[in-house]
Amino acid sequence: MAEPPPPPQQVRFGIMGCATIARKVARAIMLAPNATIVAIGSRSLEKAVSFAKENGFPATAKVYGSYDAVLDDEEVDAVYIPLPTSLHVEWAVRAAQKKKHVLLEKPVALNVKELDAILAACESSGVQFMDGTMWMHHPRTARMKEVLSDPQQLGQIKTIHSAFSFAGGPEFLKNDIRTKPDLDSLGALGDLGWYCIRAILWAFDYELPKSVTAIADPEVNDSGVILSCGASLKWQEGGRTATFYCSFLTTMVMDLTVLGTNGNLHANDYVIPVNENDATFYMNRINRIANYAYSLGNPAREETIATDLPQEALMIKEFCDLVGGIQGNGANPEKKWGEISTKTQVVLDAVKASIDNGFKPVEVVY
Amino acid sequence: MAEPPPPPQQVRFGIMGCATIARKVARAIMLAPNATIVAIGSRSLEKAVSFAKENGFPATAKVYGSYDAVLDDEEVDAVYIPLPTSLHVEWAVRAAQKKKHVLLEKPVALNVKELDAILAACESSGVQFMDGTMWMHHPRTARMKEVLSDPQQLGQIKTIHSAFSFAGGPEFLKNDIRTKPDLDSLGALGDLGWYCIRAILWAFDYELPKSVTAIADPEVNDSGVILSCGASLKWQEGGRTATFYCSFLTTMVMDLTVLGTNGNLHANDYVIPVNENDATFYMNRINRIANYAYSLGNPAREETIATDLPQEALMIKEFCDLVGGIQGNGANPEKKWGEISTKTQVVLDAVKASIDNGFKPVEVVY
Repeated sequence: MAEPPPPPQQVRFGIMGCATIARKVARAIMLAPNATIVAIGSRSLEKAVSFAKENGFPATAKVYGSYDAVLDDEEVDAVYIPLPTSLHVEWAVRAAQKKKHVLLEKPVALNVKELDAILAACESSGVQFMDGTMWMHHPRTARMKEVLSDPQQLGQIKTIHSAFSFAGGPEFLKNDIRTKPDLDSLGALGDLGWYCIRAILWAFDYELPKSVTAIADPEVNDSGVILSCGASLKWQEGGRTATFYCSFLTTMVMDLTVLGTNGNLHANDYVIPVNENDATFYMNRINRIANYAYSLGNPAREETIATDLPQEALMIKEFCDLVGGIQGNGANPEKKWGEISTKTQVVLDAVKASIDNGFKPVEVVY
Repeated sequence: MAEPPPPPQQVRFGIMGCATIARKVARAIMLAPNATIVAIGSRSLEKAVSFAKENGFPATAKVYGSYDAVLDDEEVDAVYIPLPTSLHVEWAVRAAQKKKHVLLEKPVALNVKELDAILAACESSGVQFMDGTMWMHHPRTARMKEVLSDPQQLGQIKTIHSAFSFAGGPEFLKNDIRTKPDLDSLGALGDLGWYCIRAILWAFDYELPKSVTAIADPEVNDSGVILSCGASLKWQEGGRTATFYCSFLTTMVMDLTVLGTNGNLHANDYVIPVNENDATFYMNRINRIANYAYSLGNPAREETIATDLPQEALMIKEFCDLVGGIQGNGANPEKKWGEISTKTQVVLDAVKASIDNGFKPVEVVY
């Protein structure tokens, strides 16, 4: 009998910080076949110890009382950085300089200038960069892209609408880092609008819009951090537009609707699927009211795509496949992920600029 | 044994014109218990004869070769006017002057000045006015309003999005009256945007927005008639906003999504329900991701409301109840319907003004 195949080479992760989202990603690292956790660091050693214990880290994982200690650990191949956005540029650049591959939580930076610095550091060190936009890695996303790209199904995409919100509640609005001007000054735009912008760009094959206009009026907290906002986007040609809305003030919605000349596509949980083992979207190809005198006719077609791993574990797997290629085969880092992050940040910056200039249109230049 | 109750007094309708939509409304008049068709008029007698025959009119119904003949018929209590929008002010005013109650197809006018003239004529003659926005009369609409008004269910409404489109196809885009500058110069904004604006106002209890900004760029045909457009609306207080999109260029969608601080509501066939005998909407009251590490949790709650008559017959019934009250009991006309039409038209005019001024905000004044 043949030997069983060797276990895949595992990329060794260090986690920088104990954010809530890090619980989900730590689990994902443990679920992915080609990744393992070897270290966690926090400014508080005590917090790091608790985090490792509560989240079932391997007994061999090292626990540090600083982020630098993670970066100095030669057994760490890659870092996951879930720190507040204002700390991203400092720590992502430092990680890249220490030759660590970088998986960076979104929003990736406070502005594209910071992201440019991060990507330059990654390029200079030859390490892989990827942001933490999990839904990109779900097989439903790939399947939706097939449908969107099929002229028989969608035709020409004319407009997209996305809404992502959750009602944070008083405690969240007061104390969460996502509402603090010194930590995550982009607020709901950075935390939720990031996904809407990404989904819109994704559907339009990452063609940047020509201009962006913020919708009046966003709500802000006492510190000026955005709690809800929206924008409209327009492209150069083809009457293509998009709108989005994001909010910490209204209950959970994760809508994506793409309207095309031959059909439309809808998903109502595109950011985080309702189930871990599958995800659904809806297609509708009705062109006219079947009989104007009576009723609409056919309901939408529903398609459900199964997955063996949750989307966040698929994200880790994809990241580690790239890291493994660099480490084992001398491949170059995949630049696509940095480019996608950059375009998302460029549009996000334009929305912010439009909010700051009184909701006038802002040309998208990059 | 008691006598059976007498049949309800029937309001006698004259129909002015043979538009496609008139087929649906003629059927509704025949379905409503308190309405009957007594006449139809068209510029072409032949067309009117065919229309009466094809749509199963009562044998007693009179067929005229002009609109004036309908207005001169003393047996006609009320007229239904499905003429092109550019003819509304002339014929609705003339109908009111002839003491006919007026059921007017939407969009009710090319602008609010015309509508003011129509409503003044109705008021002067003491006749009832109502526009042909059918979904207002479905029991689902009343039930959705209950939910929206319940602070425990929706809380404060923060934003609304509505999209209404159908892909007209080459023949429609070339020859339909809704794409002709001399007939329906408001194009998709008048035909479809009307519903989106109405739904948004309805959800906000008809409080007018403070300003309206059209979304760049609408698509227009060679004659400048709008084929697709959208707008954002904002209210004075409470961070309230809305967006809508309407188009003759993308496939059928009739979405209404209302996001509140305690829940959200969604309907995907609010203009014309998929079924004639019931209609569904969805409520979701999830406030946060139940467990951030895993998945979203509960799906939406679905509620289906039955109806014994299609919504267009309920519209006729309500209109005829009001006409019956005026005729039989000397009641005054119900002004609510004219006010709702006016507010819808005022917002529609503001969207048009914003399109015409290069997508700058337009204050909504009335």
